[in-house]
Amino acid sequence: MKIAVDAMGGDYAPAEIVKGIELARDAYPDVEFLLFGQEAAVKPLIKNSDRIQFVPATETITMEDEPVRAVRRKKQSSIVLAATAVKEGQADAFFSAGNSGAVLTAGLLIVGRIKGIDRPGLTTTLPVLRKPDQSSFVMLDVGANADTKAFNVVQYAIMGQYYAQSVMHVQQPRVGLLNNGTEADKGDKNHRAIHDALAQMSEINFIGNVESRELLNGAADVVVTDGFTGNATLKAIEGTALSMLKLIKGEIMSGGLGGKIGASMLKPVFGKVRSAMDYSQYGGAVLLGLKAPVVKTHGSSKAPTVKNTIGQIRELVASHSADQLVSYFDQHTDEMAALKESLK
Amino acid sequence: MKIAVDAMGGDYAPAEIVKGIELARDAYPDVEFLLFGQEAAVKPLIKNSDRIQFVPATETITMEDEPVRAVRRKKQSSIVLAATAVKEGQADAFFSAGNSGAVLTAGLLIVGRIKGIDRPGLTTTLPVLRKPDQSSFVMLDVGANADTKAFNVVQYAIMGQYYAQSVMHVQQPRVGLLNNGTEADKGDKNHRAIHDALAQMSEINFIGNVESRELLNGAADVVVTDGFTGNATLKAIEGTALSMLKLIKGEIMSGGLGGKIGASMLKPVFGKVRSAMDYSQYGGAVLLGLKAPVVKTHGSSKAPTVKNTIGQIRELVASHSADQLVSYFDQHTDEMAALKESLK
Repeated sequence: MKIAVDAMGGDYAPAEIVKGIELARDAYPDVEFLLFGQEAAVKPLIKNSDRIQFVPATETITMEDEPVRAVRRKKQSSIVLAATAVKEGQADAFFSAGNSGAVLTAGLLIVGRIKGIDRPGLTTTLPVLRKPDQSSFVMLDVGANADTKAFNVVQYAIMGQYYAQSVMHVQQPRVGLLNNGTEADKGDKNHRAIHDALAQMSEINFIGNVESRELLNGAADVVVTDGFTGNATLKAIEGTALSMLKLIKGEIMSGGLGGKIGASMLKPVFGKVRSAMDYSQYGGAVLLGLKAPVVKTHGSSKAPTVKNTIGQIRELVASHSADQLVSYFDQHTDEMAALKESLK
Repeated sequence: MKIAVDAMGGDYAPAEIVKGIELARDAYPDVEFLLFGQEAAVKPLIKNSDRIQFVPATETITMEDEPVRAVRRKKQSSIVLAATAVKEGQADAFFSAGNSGAVLTAGLLIVGRIKGIDRPGLTTTLPVLRKPDQSSFVMLDVGANADTKAFNVVQYAIMGQYYAQSVMHVQQPRVGLLNNGTEADKGDKNHRAIHDALAQMSEINFIGNVESRELLNGAADVVVTDGFTGNATLKAIEGTALSMLKLIKGEIMSGGLGGKIGASMLKPVFGKVRSAMDYSQYGGAVLLGLKAPVVKTHGSSKAPTVKNTIGQIRELVASHSADQLVSYFDQHTDEMAALKESLK
């Protein structure tokens, strides 16, 4: 398989991107890469070009660029060229650590939606901190759409289920709807309609409503939500985890315990905690619902995260989950049309 | 001043409620109490009836009761009788640790909304973990309404500002709109309209959009949001804080450090962290927008929390913030009508 890589995106690009791709190349003998970037900046960084084909991109989309405008105008950027390679069948997936909006836009406008899917959903894997038999869960949409319809959320359940089967290897993933209480009648009119639609779908292992308080305890394998609430919930989890880490570290150090046990002894403990919370180890955020995987990692990603994300993309491509989604929505056009109508 | 207290609500009621009220009575010489509850259960618990007038309530609304139905039918319950005492001017505020839905319903239906306020908003105080000069912030609505209109969120800003001035003693509280990015054009159509309406109100110190990732870092003094997103964000913060506390504790104990420093030495550290995160110390959740303060604390509240919450209610009553809101909305009926129309 072949993965199209934007070498120019990310805080440590292109050095850490190229390093990570070489790590991935060495780890996964079945993967080839198309590496898009500025020739003078990227080419000298490639130590060994085995299975890495460099493709020059004369333009770069920066973090400051307005996404839709940039994708439309910077035709020679690494993001646009990499997405185009996927569209034209030269690559099986697109990876970037760059401007999120531009990556999502390139995915939507260039790689393209699967027929029958209204809105692709940005999907993130998060850790489960308590349950010993479940290490992670996926949540979507975490921000691709600020204005999500009930019908979109129902489609996220199908997309999330295929994703959890492919990447988490859970055969019957428990799908939960993020809501403001667990009872079936919780939430606004929209959420009650989504709940009832999901409860009626025999192909979904729907476990009902879940609350954001229980997500890190493993309330579900797949959590579906509108992009606005999903974004707020994801960022609240991130922010609180970081704040707690700092608070507890500060209390231990200032409480006299720091001197007793020494900062060096605490380091591995907090390193382990930080790595448990660091969902970039689970790979990037995937824009599900496109004809091929489009994956965005944190801008702060370094080589090991790049390598892990390539591992995740490799599983996604190998599992043919995008093809499975294509055929699912192809076989369910009538059901989807009826569902869309009923959820209006 | 006089506070009407539901002695029957909460996991440790009536014992811890009565105990907390006696602590508050001893701490605040200017406060009297009307204590509503079942005679046989409550009366024997009162050690000293100085400034505590017991009022018998023959019915009790339980946690299992459907809120609206219970408030309508159980006319002799402690919740209904206490709310009625406020409505009839026998008390200045209503306090309960019982069935949240029933407390909110009694507030809405019995105490009643301030004229001009469409939807009261449930308001919670949360800790700021980083900024040394700011210890807390308030957020509303955190769940009174699952179906919030743009106009309601704009009104929350005014209500939240008066509340922060009264209880947090911040003269010019920074008001932020919870959104999925900080730029002015972020969010769906509704959020862009709310942003623009708030930016035009000269009486509000509006600082723009804030993200849930930055709340515990003190991004704003007052965070306004719709009840659905606010509820999901609040519960994500709660859940993540608890999970992180357990995770870090577990890592320290199992990492060999536990043996070295001893569980007893860690106890005060985690006690301090837990108390920093324990927002019940900042008092209960207030349903703002009613003619008098209606305050609900966590069901798990024990006597010290009950006492702290009474202290908060005392400040609220003394600051006349409900009266200030009444006169604000009385003086701004035309502006509010125009705003409501423009946000439709």
